[in-house]
Formats: sequence, structure tokens, C-alpha cells
Amino acid sequence: MPHIDLPKEYPGIRSLFEFRPQTAAPLNALVQTLLHNPHPTLSQGERELIATYVSSLNHCKYCATIHGAIAKHHLHNENVVQQVKSNPETASISNKLKALLRIAVHVQLGGKEVSTTDVEAAQKEGATDIEIHDTVLIAAAFCMFNRYVDGLATWAPDDPEVYDRMGKQRAEEGYLTPPFKIQNGPLK
Amino acid sequence: MPHIDLPKEYPGIRSLFEFRPQTAAPLNALVQTLLHNPHPTLSQGERELIATYVSSLNHCKYCATIHGAIAKHHLHNENVVQQVKSNPETASISNKLKALLRIAVHVQLGGKEVSTTDVEAAQKEGATDIEIHDTVLIAAAFCMFNRYVDGLATWAPDDPEVYDRMGKQRAEEGYLTPPFKIQNGPLK
Repeated sequence: MPHIDLPKEYPGIRSLFEFRPQTAAPLNALVQTLLHNPHPTLSQGERELIATYVSSLNHCKYCATIHGAIAKHHLHNENVVQQVKSNPETASISNKLKALLRIAVHVQLGGKEVSTTDVEAAQKEGATDIEIHDTVLIAAAFCMFNRYVDGLATWAPDDPEVYDRMGKQRAEEGYLTPPFKIQNGPLK
Repeated sequence: MPHIDLPKEYPGIRSLFEFRPQTAAPLNALVQTLLHNPHPTLSQGERELIATYVSSLNHCKYCATIHGAIAKHHLHNENVVQQVKSNPETASISNKLKALLRIAVHVQLGGKEVSTTDVEAAQKEGATDIEIHDTVLIAAAFCMFNRYVDGLATWAPDDPEVYDRMGKQRAEEGYLTPPFKIQNGPLK
């Protein structure tokens, strides 16, 4: 049960966006910029993998599952999403993305945990300043989104098909279009 | 030393905003909405105290000091800022704000740490759904801002006068006006 009275036909952060449109606008603009808009070098799928992995470290079921589904639709590859969630070091991803994910792990623990060694290791794999910046900000942003979604105890669907459908929509349309209503949610 | 090449004449998050204007826009819109724009019931000073306290729990010197200075300028009271930073339970603030700060402490630890008991205690002191929502989101947002500022090892000035001048500007103007340049910074 959510801690406050939220619209029952939307899950996770979407129920919060309906409840408080004033804060939904900049939050959606942020995630659109970080994850969906064109990027000089990091693909949408790579950026969604960073978001998925941090959400998974924060045990945020809604965010980890929906961003995993969005990553899958961008990458046309479900296996790599599961590999990253279980252990990025052995996943079929570039060494640069592995180094960026090591930075993300440290951001999740706390900003001061990111070391010069982490950053130099990413630079050695070819990471640019913009890639390092955006990795830190994506990881930090999901430390916000995960706390927001779970701190208000929003509803996370159990049905993988629901996430797959929402993930396909976001991969195709980005974050600024209206969400589906979910009928027969457990809170109806 | 920052982990990436940032403009040296701006401290903390302001150096990151200059480096990456694409992400600065939604981040500034978010903090303007959360902390500065009119609110049905929480004053600007109360909202800045929540931001200050969470930044202090995250040991983010730049954010805790600048938002403490902004709170001071809104509240015309430096003592209460120091009291909240050292122990909100004994600070000269309302019981409702104390209950909201207990929620913020749990958000800082992780979203799932916020309990029904925390929320009911705030409701008993008169907290509305919007106040509970905004407290969770302010606390979550500062778990992002603190990680962003420290995860890239930005420069935090030592001089209290610098924070006081920046705090006065933000209390008066909000978050959308250009920052001061700081001459003679340690990175020049």
C-alpha cells in the first residue's frame, strides 16, 4: 500500500507523476535528457543499462524491471540485461562500459566513494569526460528515483508482460508521452 | 581536484552546470520547483532545512553549507540551521517538521527504510500527503545532488563568506539566475 493516496491505475513513479505534475515535469525532462535524447557516444541501451544496474543495487523492483525492459528493447537483447544485473564483470559488454559501471557502483554507495583510480581506469578504456560525467549523474539520479519510488511505497506490478509493454513504449517514444493505464492492478 | 576538466571559477554543482548545460536545465528546474517556488504549506526556509539536513547526513560539504546559508537567509535565523544540522530533535522547529525530518533520514538510508510508522507519526502532527510527498522527493533529490557533486570531486570553497553571499543570492533570486564567478579560487 502506498504511504499516500495515489492514483491506483498507474504503477511506480507514474503514480507519483500523476499525483504531483509540478515535480513530474522536471523529473521527466531529466530522464529524457539523460537516457533518451541523442548522446555524443553512449547509446540509449548503454545508458539504460547503467540505470538498470544502479536500480538493481538499490533493490528497486519497479525501476530495475522497467529500465531493464527499456534496455532490452533498445538493444534487442534480453540476455545482456540479465548478465549486467547479475554481474557486469562477466557480461557481454565493452570494457569501457564495465569501467563506467564500476564508477556507478561507487556513486550508489556515496559520492566520496568514487576514486581517482576508478576514473583513470575508465579513461584507460577510452571514456571521455562527458561519459564519466553522465555515468555519475545517471547513477546519482537513480539513487533519487529509486528512493522516491520506494520511499512512498508505490505499487510495482508482478507481471513481466506489463513491464515489457511499458518498456517498448518508452524505448520507442521516450519519457514525455502519457503512460498506459493498467486495469486490474492489485490496488483497484 | 575534480575528476574531470571543469571550469575553475565556479564551485560545487555550478561547475557541473557550466560543463553540461543540457543536464543543468532540468536539474535547476527541479530544485527551483522543490525549494523555491510557492508551496501550499511548507515555507522556503523549511524546505531548505530538509535539503541542508540530508546533505549534512551525506557529508556533502558544498551542498550542506550552501543550502544552510540559503535557509539562514530565508529564516533570518542562523541558530536554527546549526541546531537542525546537529540534532533536529532538539531544534527550535515545529513537531511536524521534526516528523518530516525523521522521514528524510530514512529516505537518505534507502527508500525501503521509510515505514508506515514514520508516515503516521507525521500525519499525527498534521502533515498532508503533499508535505510527505515533497519531503521524500527533496530528501531523494539531495541523495542525487550530493552524489553528483562529490562523485565528480568538485571544488568546495572554505570561506564562509563565499557561501553567505551565494546563499543570499539564491534566497532572493531562486535557482535560475546565473551564478557569481569566484576569483582566487584554489583551482585557479
